[in-house]
Amino acid sequence: MTEPFRLTASQAQSKFKDGSLTVEDYARSLLSRVEARDATVNAWAYLNSELVLQHARELDQVPPEKRGLLHGVAIGVKDVILTKDMPTQYNSSIYENDAPKIDAGSIAVLRKNGALMLGKTTTTEFAATSVGPSHKGPKTANPHDPTRTPGGSSSGSGAAVGDLQVPIGLGTQTVGSTIRPGSFNGIYAMKPTWNSISREGQKLYSLIFDTLGLYARSVDDLKLLLDAFQLVDDEAAEDFEIKGAKFALLTLPTPQWPAPGPGTAAALKKGADILRDQGAKVEEIVLGNEFRPMYKYHLQVLSGDGRIAFLPDYYGTKDKLHSLLIEHVENKEKYTRKEQLKAFDELAAMRPKLDALADKYAAIIAPSVIDEAPVGHGNTGDAAFCGPWTAMHMPVVNIPGFKGENGLPIGLSLVSSRYRDQHLLRVCREVGKVFETQGGWTRDV
Amino acid sequence: MTEPFRLTASQAQSKFKDGSLTVEDYARSLLSRVEARDATVNAWAYLNSELVLQHARELDQVPPEKRGLLHGVAIGVKDVILTKDMPTQYNSSIYENDAPKIDAGSIAVLRKNGALMLGKTTTTEFAATSVGPSHKGPKTANPHDPTRTPGGSSSGSGAAVGDLQVPIGLGTQTVGSTIRPGSFNGIYAMKPTWNSISREGQKLYSLIFDTLGLYARSVDDLKLLLDAFQLVDDEAAEDFEIKGAKFALLTLPTPQWPAPGPGTAAALKKGADILRDQGAKVEEIVLGNEFRPMYKYHLQVLSGDGRIAFLPDYYGTKDKLHSLLIEHVENKEKYTRKEQLKAFDELAAMRPKLDALADKYAAIIAPSVIDEAPVGHGNTGDAAFCGPWTAMHMPVVNIPGFKGENGLPIGLSLVSSRYRDQHLLRVCREVGKVFETQGGWTRDV
Repeated sequence: MTEPFRLTASQAQSKFKDGSLTVEDYARSLLSRVEARDATVNAWAYLNSELVLQHARELDQVPPEKRGLLHGVAIGVKDVILTKDMPTQYNSSIYENDAPKIDAGSIAVLRKNGALMLGKTTTTEFAATSVGPSHKGPKTANPHDPTRTPGGSSSGSGAAVGDLQVPIGLGTQTVGSTIRPGSFNGIYAMKPTWNSISREGQKLYSLIFDTLGLYARSVDDLKLLLDAFQLVDDEAAEDFEIKGAKFALLTLPTPQWPAPGPGTAAALKKGADILRDQGAKVEEIVLGNEFRPMYKYHLQVLSGDGRIAFLPDYYGTKDKLHSLLIEHVENKEKYTRKEQLKAFDELAAMRPKLDALADKYAAIIAPSVIDEAPVGHGNTGDAAFCGPWTAMHMPVVNIPGFKGENGLPIGLSLVSSRYRDQHLLRVCREVGKVFETQGGWTRDV
Repeated sequence: MTEPFRLTASQAQSKFKDGSLTVEDYARSLLSRVEARDATVNAWAYLNSELVLQHARELDQVPPEKRGLLHGVAIGVKDVILTKDMPTQYNSSIYENDAPKIDAGSIAVLRKNGALMLGKTTTTEFAATSVGPSHKGPKTANPHDPTRTPGGSSSGSGAAVGDLQVPIGLGTQTVGSTIRPGSFNGIYAMKPTWNSISREGQKLYSLIFDTLGLYARSVDDLKLLLDAFQLVDDEAAEDFEIKGAKFALLTLPTPQWPAPGPGTAAALKKGADILRDQGAKVEEIVLGNEFRPMYKYHLQVLSGDGRIAFLPDYYGTKDKLHSLLIEHVENKEKYTRKEQLKAFDELAAMRPKLDALADKYAAIIAPSVIDEAPVGHGNTGDAAFCGPWTAMHMPVVNIPGFKGENGLPIGLSLVSSRYRDQHLLRVCREVGKVFETQGGWTRDV
């Protein structure tokens, strides 16, 4: 029998339903996996085995007809999301051992649907820096090569899901904090449409960009989450076939965005070839000049938002804040309000235009990251390729399946227009099958 | 000597500075005022006198050179804003006695600057309905005529500041929840520029509209708060004179907005006359047809946002939610995502246009409410006049000074473009002086 920790959440649920696995035994298997791997990967900021087993036993007591959509689904929660039974520490010494008794809106939805919170996963400081996170020990490592970063800021959730320590992880994304670790750890990662899931109780960086992120090792698992969050499209579900579908292979204009490295360039080419082999049309398009300032505007808005978001921690505990966050509060860049409002308004004006472009295609295909996860744990990598879809509020999924020059995972982003999240998942289910079987990378942890 | 509870926060601070008043004695005076009036006004959802006095004594121990900008400033906190030493109950039976140990971002800024949290003030359910709030007793009443509503949703903060129970109140505004009670209670009320103050830890209704609101009985007190929140304009401060200044008297097109009642119509006329007498130019303008759908769009976006914000409370505790909130979650209006995105994008496109209009004037003058506070406590009144400035993210201040047919207070709104909050306060300081002395209404509680 497959060790239970290797199951996806949907597979585990099948076994809960047919009675071949209890939530408690499943939890014990996940905890044993964590125990075996934690010294190497260091993905957890807080994990209380006794609490997990107690909740697991409670879930086993729920009669089948009263079980929620997420019954027994184990979840690792990025440590910037409030959980009433575990501390929330933000990888900040200001909040060491801080444990307010409150659940974030997203956590409440997941728990009320029967999910099992396994623990809190490591994050960069307030999910707002690129410095690799630690929890009073070595920094979090990439499970596929522990000398490398798992990415950030959702480092622990990405690494734990990639390492089979938990089937589902929650991240957040303000620029590229969910999609980048998704690619580096070889897993599915989804940033849904902005504001389609409650962000209440999730550490604030930017109201207009911050989005809950979702990690899983299958599209079925992502769909479970979207259904619990009641994310529905306007259009009714229709079966998607790659054959006859039209994709855009989007190249982003430089120098505003970096050039893809050899691994990502090869993945883009191979991904397009695979889809064409399956009978899809793949059009190469370049975003027009009007979109060139997008990343500049994104960072300008973010700077102004950080000025507001970190003021509470600046007063009295400035000495414990990363210099980037101090620079936000002190407006080191000297942006004027007018500049920041222009950036805010111009991004708003771009959104319906990008939607209209995306609606011409089954999905837009774009790079997730520059290349494989870089060596070292100090820096979590470059988020530039992820920024556009965050700024545009569009749903995006990283599909794993490709590999770089060192054999490490590389994923590609599939993007849709706002509030076509369920459509995007249907596309990703089919595209994921062929990318995972023909892309060249297979999970070997 | 004036009883300390009658002082504005700035006046009390002068006495702390010259040693003629301690924070403890000031707090005792406020508490005695609360005790005398609470049975009539019922503005508090939680107030712990011992805790207040303990904090007051701690503030008195702070040496003068270490005192914050808000040293000893007493604040009533709307009960939708998290406070780590008091419950936060949202006027919802779901959260009865719920007391998470966490401060909202705004509360952290205020405390770190030396403010004294007096207690939690009543709110309509989750600040999201129009049903007058209570706290296990009669509903909150208007201090100037207890048979009438104090407005809502920031009912308790508006009533408590109007009744001299506390000099400063915090509210929130998603449509008109700060400005409306400001007018009904005869006080200054400010909704600053959207996202200029951290909204972290403030109950979510709409990310794109929710704004912290500020109540005071003087412009100096509002300025103290803006300074603590480090709200600065691009332009340097310049003395403002009414003489020679240009104002817009804005009439909103019907039928999208209601017609002003006789009290507000008279206040608008009298306000314009007073300013003209002082040598200002007052131009009557009507917003163009392109802005007509603004309120419809506002409510469409709000409906979609409520669908997301109240999902966590819908699961499992739906029977304890107001029907309006259930309707949001269930999308009773059957808005499509496309409709809601169009509304979101069209409002975004209007913002720079309204800014450009506002920048032609010292301020825009507009109605705050339809008329005096209505009789009864069940309904907190109509927010339609307040909506535009919330939707447009513009700073707005209610200036008291006028009265209606029953002698109850009526205020007028002064509005500026985004991030000209300090400019707006300088205008309001001068305009407030003449409205308060010549408008015809004087506080008599």
